[in-house]
Amino acid sequence: MASVTELYTELVQELQKTATLASVSAVLGWDEQTYMPHGGAEHRANQLGMLAGMVHERATAPRVGELLEQLATSNLMSDPDSPEPANIREARRDYTRATKLPRRLVEELSRVTTLGQHAWIDARKESNFAHFQPWLEKIVKLKREEAETVGYGKGVPYDALLDEFEPGSTAAEITSLFTPLRDALVPLIAKIRDSGKVAPVEILERSYPIESQKSFSKYASQKIGFNFNEGRLDETAHPFCSGFGPGDCRLTTRYNFHHFPGAFFGTLHESGHGIYEQGLPKEAFGTALGSATSLGIHESQSRLWENFVGRGRAFWKHFYPTAQAMFPEALGSTKFDDFYWAINDVRPSLIRVEADEATYNLHIMLRFELEQPLVAGDLQPADVPAVWNETFTRYFGITPPNDAQGCLQDIHWSFGGIGYFPTYTLGNMFAAQFYEAAERDLGDLGGQLAAGEYLPLKEWLNKKIHVHGKRYRAQRLAEMVTGEPLSHKPLVKHLQTKYAELYGIG
Amino acid sequence: MASVTELYTELVQELQKTATLASVSAVLGWDEQTYMPHGGAEHRANQLGMLAGMVHERATAPRVGELLEQLATSNLMSDPDSPEPANIREARRDYTRATKLPRRLVEELSRVTTLGQHAWIDARKESNFAHFQPWLEKIVKLKREEAETVGYGKGVPYDALLDEFEPGSTAAEITSLFTPLRDALVPLIAKIRDSGKVAPVEILERSYPIESQKSFSKYASQKIGFNFNEGRLDETAHPFCSGFGPGDCRLTTRYNFHHFPGAFFGTLHESGHGIYEQGLPKEAFGTALGSATSLGIHESQSRLWENFVGRGRAFWKHFYPTAQAMFPEALGSTKFDDFYWAINDVRPSLIRVEADEATYNLHIMLRFELEQPLVAGDLQPADVPAVWNETFTRYFGITPPNDAQGCLQDIHWSFGGIGYFPTYTLGNMFAAQFYEAAERDLGDLGGQLAAGEYLPLKEWLNKKIHVHGKRYRAQRLAEMVTGEPLSHKPLVKHLQTKYAELYGIG
Repeated sequence: MASVTELYTELVQELQKTATLASVSAVLGWDEQTYMPHGGAEHRANQLGMLAGMVHERATAPRVGELLEQLATSNLMSDPDSPEPANIREARRDYTRATKLPRRLVEELSRVTTLGQHAWIDARKESNFAHFQPWLEKIVKLKREEAETVGYGKGVPYDALLDEFEPGSTAAEITSLFTPLRDALVPLIAKIRDSGKVAPVEILERSYPIESQKSFSKYASQKIGFNFNEGRLDETAHPFCSGFGPGDCRLTTRYNFHHFPGAFFGTLHESGHGIYEQGLPKEAFGTALGSATSLGIHESQSRLWENFVGRGRAFWKHFYPTAQAMFPEALGSTKFDDFYWAINDVRPSLIRVEADEATYNLHIMLRFELEQPLVAGDLQPADVPAVWNETFTRYFGITPPNDAQGCLQDIHWSFGGIGYFPTYTLGNMFAAQFYEAAERDLGDLGGQLAAGEYLPLKEWLNKKIHVHGKRYRAQRLAEMVTGEPLSHKPLVKHLQTKYAELYGIG
Repeated sequence: MASVTELYTELVQELQKTATLASVSAVLGWDEQTYMPHGGAEHRANQLGMLAGMVHERATAPRVGELLEQLATSNLMSDPDSPEPANIREARRDYTRATKLPRRLVEELSRVTTLGQHAWIDARKESNFAHFQPWLEKIVKLKREEAETVGYGKGVPYDALLDEFEPGSTAAEITSLFTPLRDALVPLIAKIRDSGKVAPVEILERSYPIESQKSFSKYASQKIGFNFNEGRLDETAHPFCSGFGPGDCRLTTRYNFHHFPGAFFGTLHESGHGIYEQGLPKEAFGTALGSATSLGIHESQSRLWENFVGRGRAFWKHFYPTAQAMFPEALGSTKFDDFYWAINDVRPSLIRVEADEATYNLHIMLRFELEQPLVAGDLQPADVPAVWNETFTRYFGITPPNDAQGCLQDIHWSFGGIGYFPTYTLGNMFAAQFYEAAERDLGDLGGQLAAGEYLPLKEWLNKKIHVHGKRYRAQRLAEMVTGEPLSHKPLVKHLQTKYAELYGIG
C-alpha cells in the first residue's frame, strides 16, 4: 500500500499538472486581449473551450477524489496550521465544488454567460435593458441552481456564490461590515459636497503624451517593486493582471492623451495585483499555498498601492518632480497641492470604475443590496433598472439618466459574477487595515515613501501576506497580520483624515 | 454498426481536436520568442512539455488506429483524388509513424535534443566543437534508431529522416536533382568571381532608422498580400512564421540599423510562408487538406516572394521611390541600378543564412553531402569539422577560420533536424519552376509587379498550390501546376539570366 507521503506527493503532482494546464489558458486569454489579430477569435474560442474541458476533467478526476478522501483522514491533518492540511483542505473544497456541479449545469452556464456577455455589450451600447433582461433572468436562475447544488449550510443561497470569490465569507458577515462603513461614508460625502470646494480636476485633462505616460507608468511600477524580469506591462481595452505561473505575470493598462489618472493609477493598481502574484511562493504553484487567499485580499494589494500609497502626499513628494519633468506642458507650472487635490477629487458620479476612493464603496454597496434579493428571488430582473435608480438616488443624490450609465455599466452579471462585487470593498477595508499595521511595523512609512523607498513596504507585504498563499482564510490572515479582526474603522479613519485636510471639514 | 460516414466524421473531429491542442503550443512558442519575460522560461517549458505529451497521447490513441483501419478498406478510398482518401492516407501515415516510435525513444530524443541545443549554443559561442561532439553523437545514434524503427523500404536510413520533412522524397531523388544543379552553379559562381565586378553593398549598410524599416517592411508584406486582419508582424532574435490555425498567423523579423536587407527580405520571406498558411483551406484545419504539402513547398512560397519577386527589377520599379522617400539619408541620391545590384550581390561567404541566391544552394549541398554518411555511419561526428572544412574549400574556394563559422553555425542538428536542410534547396527549385509557370499563366507578370499589382500572382498561388494542402505529394503537385516534373533547369536559368546581366557574363 502507498504511504501517506506517496499519496500526498501524487496529489500535489496532480494539482500542479491541472494548474499548469489552466495557466496555458491564461496565456491564451492574455494574447487574445493584447496581440491576437481580429481574425483569430473563432479559433481562439475553440482552443479555450477545449482547454476548459480538459481542466475540468482533470479537476474532477475520480483519482483525485480518492487521494483526497484518504488524505483527509490521515495523520497529515494532525497539525492544521502546517502546509499539508491547508493544501488538502483547499483541494477538497475545490474538488467538492467542481464535482457537485453537474456537467449540464456547467455547460449551460458557460453557454449562457458567453452569449449573455455579447447581449450585455449590445444592451449597454444601446442603453437597452430589455435586450439584456432575458439573459439576466437565465443567469440568475442558473446561479440560483448553482447555489442550491453547492449548498450554503444554515446561510442563504447568496453565500454559496460569494464563497466562490471570497472563501468562507457570508452575506451576513459582509452586511455587518458594510453597514457601519456606509453609515460613516454617507455623512462624510455629504460634508465634502456641502464644503462647496471643488478639486481642480482640469489639471488631469491636459496634454499627457502617450509615450511619456508609458515610460512614467512603467517606471513607477518598477519602483514600487513589480519585477519586470518576471513580468510585462502591455495595453488593452480593459486593464487586468494575469499571473501565468512562477516567473511570469502580465499587467495591462490603457492610455488616454487627455486623462492622466487612468493609465497611471491603473498601472499602480495592476502592479499591486502583480506584486502579490510575484510574491506567492513559486515552489507551491498549483497548491493552496501558492494561490491567492481570496479576491478581497487580492484587491487589498491593488488598492493599497493605488490609493494608500499612490494617492498619498508622501508618494508624490518623490514622484511629482519627475512627473513635472515628463509632462512639462501639463504640470510644469502646476502647484503640488493642486495636483494632489486633483488626484483626490471626491464627488458623486455615475460610473463605478471612475469613482473616487470614498464614493467607490457606495457603488459596491448598491450592487450588494441588489444582488441579494435577486438571488433570493425577491427582486425580479425586470425590476432591476427601477430599483437601481431608486437606490442610486438615495445613495448619491443623483439619478442615472439611462441604464447604460446605470444598471448596465458592469460586465460582471453577464459573465455570472454574482457575489463578486463585495470583494472590491472588502479589498479597500483590508487595504486600510494592512496599511495601518504597516505604518506601525515599519516606523516612518510616510518618510520612506517620500524618499522613494518602497522596498520595506513591499517586503512587509511579501512576508506578512503573500508568502502564506491560501494557508489561512482571509479574515484570519488579516487578524494575524494586524492583530485585529477586519473592521470598517481603518478605512473610515483614512478617508476622514485625508478629506478633512483637503476639504477643510471637521 | 457505425456507417463509414460516421467513422470518417469521428476521425476528422479527432484530428481537429489534436490539431487544436497542438496549435495551443504554437501560441506558447510564439509568446516565448516575442514577449515572454526572461523569468517565465522554466514554467513555459513545463507548459510545453505537458502539452507535447497530451498531443502525442491523442495522436497515438488506439481509437484513431481503429478508425483508420476501418476507413482504409472502406469505399471512401475508391477515388484516390477525392478529399477523404487524402485525409485518411496522411492521417494513417502520421499515426503509423507516431505509434511505431516507442515512448522511450521519443522521450530520449526530446531530452537529448533539448540539452543538445543548450550545448550547441555554448559550443558555437566558444567555437568549441568538442563541447557539442558528444551530443551530436547521441543525436545521430538516436536518429539512426528512429530511421530503423520507422523503416525506409528499399532505400537508405536517411530516407526515413528526410521523409519527416519532405514526405515521399528520397536521398537518391534529391541527389539526382542536386547534382546537375551543382554542376551548373559552380561554374556560374566562378564566372561571377572572375568577372572582377563587385556589387556596391556599402549602400545597404548605411543608416536605416528602425521605425522606418518597421513601416516599410509591414507595408510591403501587406502589399504582396499578407492579411494583417488574420496575422501580425513582431520582432524576434530568430525570424519565423507560425500559423496558429484558421485566421491567425504570426510573422517575425529582426531589425538592424546598419543592414537594410535583413529585416526587409526577411519579412518578405516570412510573408511568403504566411501567405501560404493563410491560403490553406480554413474548413480543413487539422486534416491533410488543411496542412502544408511539405517543407520544400513551404519554402518555395517564401523564396518565391523573397527572391523571385522581392529581389527582382520589376518589384523595385514600384517600391524604390517609396524606399528612397522612407530612407532619404541612405537612398535619396542612390541610383536604382546600384541599389538593385547591391541587393543581388553574389560572393562566396561562410554563413548560410547570409548567403546570396546563388551560393546559398551550395551551402545546402555541403550539408546534404555530410548528413548522409553521418546517418549511414560512414562519417563519425568527431570527423565532421575536418570534412566540413575540406568540402567547404572545395565548394567555395575559402576555408572557415573556425567551427563557429563552419560546422557549428546551424541549430538544426542540435534539435534533431537531420534531413531538414535539403528542403531549402528543394524550395528554391520549386519556386523557380512555379514562378516560370506563373509567368506563362499570368501574361505580363513583370509588368504587373512593376505596377505594384501583386494580387494576380498571390491568387494564382492560392488557386494552384495553397488550396490543395497536402492532397498531393510535393513533386506531383509541382508537375500538376507547371506541367513538368521538378527540375534544376528553371532555377539555373533564372540565376544565369539575372547574373549575366548584372555581372556581364555570358
